[in-house]
Amino acid sequence: MTDKKNPLSANFKLGFLGAGQLARMSGLQAFRYGIQVGVFSDRPENEPVQFMTPHSHTGSFDSVEDLVAFAKTCNVLTLENEFISSEVLKEVHEHSGTPIYPSPQSFALIENKLIEKQTFEEAGIPVTPYALVDSQKELRAFGDKHGWPYMLKSSKGGYDGYGNETVQDIDEAVVAYENLGGHSDRDILAEAFVDFTKELAVQVARNETGHVVYPCCETVQENHICVAVKSPAPVDQSIQSKAQELAVKATEAIDGKGIFAFEFFLKENGELILNESAPRPHNSGHYTIEGCVTSQFENHVRAVLGLPLGSAGLRSPAVSMINLLGTDEHDAQVDNAFEALKAAGGHLHIYGKLDSRPGRKMGHFTLLGDDVEETYNTAQRLTKEIFI
Amino acid sequence: MTDKKNPLSANFKLGFLGAGQLARMSGLQAFRYGIQVGVFSDRPENEPVQFMTPHSHTGSFDSVEDLVAFAKTCNVLTLENEFISSEVLKEVHEHSGTPIYPSPQSFALIENKLIEKQTFEEAGIPVTPYALVDSQKELRAFGDKHGWPYMLKSSKGGYDGYGNETVQDIDEAVVAYENLGGHSDRDILAEAFVDFTKELAVQVARNETGHVVYPCCETVQENHICVAVKSPAPVDQSIQSKAQELAVKATEAIDGKGIFAFEFFLKENGELILNESAPRPHNSGHYTIEGCVTSQFENHVRAVLGLPLGSAGLRSPAVSMINLLGTDEHDAQVDNAFEALKAAGGHLHIYGKLDSRPGRKMGHFTLLGDDVEETYNTAQRLTKEIFI
Repeated sequence: MTDKKNPLSANFKLGFLGAGQLARMSGLQAFRYGIQVGVFSDRPENEPVQFMTPHSHTGSFDSVEDLVAFAKTCNVLTLENEFISSEVLKEVHEHSGTPIYPSPQSFALIENKLIEKQTFEEAGIPVTPYALVDSQKELRAFGDKHGWPYMLKSSKGGYDGYGNETVQDIDEAVVAYENLGGHSDRDILAEAFVDFTKELAVQVARNETGHVVYPCCETVQENHICVAVKSPAPVDQSIQSKAQELAVKATEAIDGKGIFAFEFFLKENGELILNESAPRPHNSGHYTIEGCVTSQFENHVRAVLGLPLGSAGLRSPAVSMINLLGTDEHDAQVDNAFEALKAAGGHLHIYGKLDSRPGRKMGHFTLLGDDVEETYNTAQRLTKEIFI
Repeated sequence: MTDKKNPLSANFKLGFLGAGQLARMSGLQAFRYGIQVGVFSDRPENEPVQFMTPHSHTGSFDSVEDLVAFAKTCNVLTLENEFISSEVLKEVHEHSGTPIYPSPQSFALIENKLIEKQTFEEAGIPVTPYALVDSQKELRAFGDKHGWPYMLKSSKGGYDGYGNETVQDIDEAVVAYENLGGHSDRDILAEAFVDFTKELAVQVARNETGHVVYPCCETVQENHICVAVKSPAPVDQSIQSKAQELAVKATEAIDGKGIFAFEFFLKENGELILNESAPRPHNSGHYTIEGCVTSQFENHVRAVLGLPLGSAGLRSPAVSMINLLGTDEHDAQVDNAFEALKAAGGHLHIYGKLDSRPGRKMGHFTLLGDDVEETYNTAQRLTKEIFI
């Protein structure tokens, strides 16, 4: 199925590795271009994308065989998470012939937090102070040099605060090192806490036709989970531009093809430190669906298919996005959303997950307005009573 | 499956009777709310919606049994065409218990062009001069009274000029009467030609929470097929308001729940005559996807599910939509679309049909801008070379 040159042709199929809301929102954009959607999940049914295509495959993210069988049914593959290793992706591409974007080569540069930091550092992008730690001595030395508390991270597989532990002293560091798998095969990275005033994010879409960079937005985090986004970020234009410039540089450093998100710490002195990167659509960019001329999802699809990219400009002076998180365990059901639905400039998105759980990302609400803080406050008020 | 009160709950399924681009674009909005999509088609496979759901049913639009079996798998049903009679719809509702919107009662008032005209006339809405004709004498009398040529229409089942014939004289009238089924069981309607300067259209969404009315747009027609839309229509504000007022009145006259489109002739003297109505999303409203705050498809889904309706306001001072029609018979493939994709404010939609045919609606292109005619001219230029 890999000989099609034109993605805008009959029966062209884009395959998603992963079946969650990011693949779902990307898939909706693929449909807009008449492109069919395939999905590969490690869960047999009831994942968000599985409700919107007849082409669902189930298997293991570690099984080259499972993935190759799926890849052969698609013209291009893309990722919605970082659960598949670049080694496996490379083999899947070699055995199926199906292109994968972002490429396994790009992915190899960011799947491992150590290599990621080195790659971005070499490209002149400031990153959080870090060190590979492999002994009690090194755990102590890092704290002594950069201050306690600091973070320990498994070099592979972190997501929304999982795979991370904050350590207050050497005793906690030793326990966390063990918990994160330091004594088995995992590299453990120590990372200094950066004293920041805000967290910012920028998305970049890039392919052989060029790149577009989205506005610099602010992400509001609680317990390492993004709960809201304000765009443009309420910071000086010079800081916004600097973040955009660093994000483009970072995308180029990994020769990225697709959509990428970069999260920055903004320090008191105006300095920007790259914190995290994601080789996929990102929660910080959900507001772009209505907030920008071309959403991160649409440009993701365009980018991986080699189509020209669309404008990433804002559609209104201010946009705010509120994540709708599950409150307890129950069959998914949205209550008290009528105020949000009625709001002019408001846009409700529900991901179609069947079960709600505390903190689970069940949907989001975007509000367009004229002033960033006012729009954010209104969006918060409109969503406050929503029970999901 | 009909006991669910809240459409924003797990496993809620909206069923579409018909699997073409209108159901497809509506289905994409249902997905945005986490709602699942079922589709019933009289063709076994390869219809646009069938690529975006695991829940496809095939059967006959005339078979109550087939339709009931499908209805029982859905929480609410809606229509994307006028191919199913209100009698059948009524039986399907009675036997399945599944609500159908627009209701069979509303549909009964517009499926037959004679009853439709009578209904709207009684509501004080000007309609094209018409008469039921059933003999050579009546065919001749209509032409003598209202002038030759005039139109003969089958009272049921017309769509995009099919089921209509223009007759120049009594000989052609006799042949057309026969062709349209006048000697079998069909009522044939004679309709005078209205000398108009423009064709206008207005969409209205309505349910128990209220109604919203879209801007009055101009439809550009060639051979009875809509080829482009300009919004707002380049006519006096008073005419736009009058068309909106008549469209709301017409929706109320049939107690419509869902989205409805009304096409008007604008006469030289500023008079508006209602030409056609459609109880579903309509080609004249495709521009609302990006052109309005809430698209006709989103408000369609909201309306039939009993959710509050969203603003139908324009998102930019001018919007233009160009239909992308098939040029000859070939496997669907879009060529020369890069200029359109690159245009700031441009939005390309492809429907995923596998085969192109001359005149077949394969996709559309929407452009947002500041001036109606300039935006229309630019949209035409950007799509001129597209081969689909």
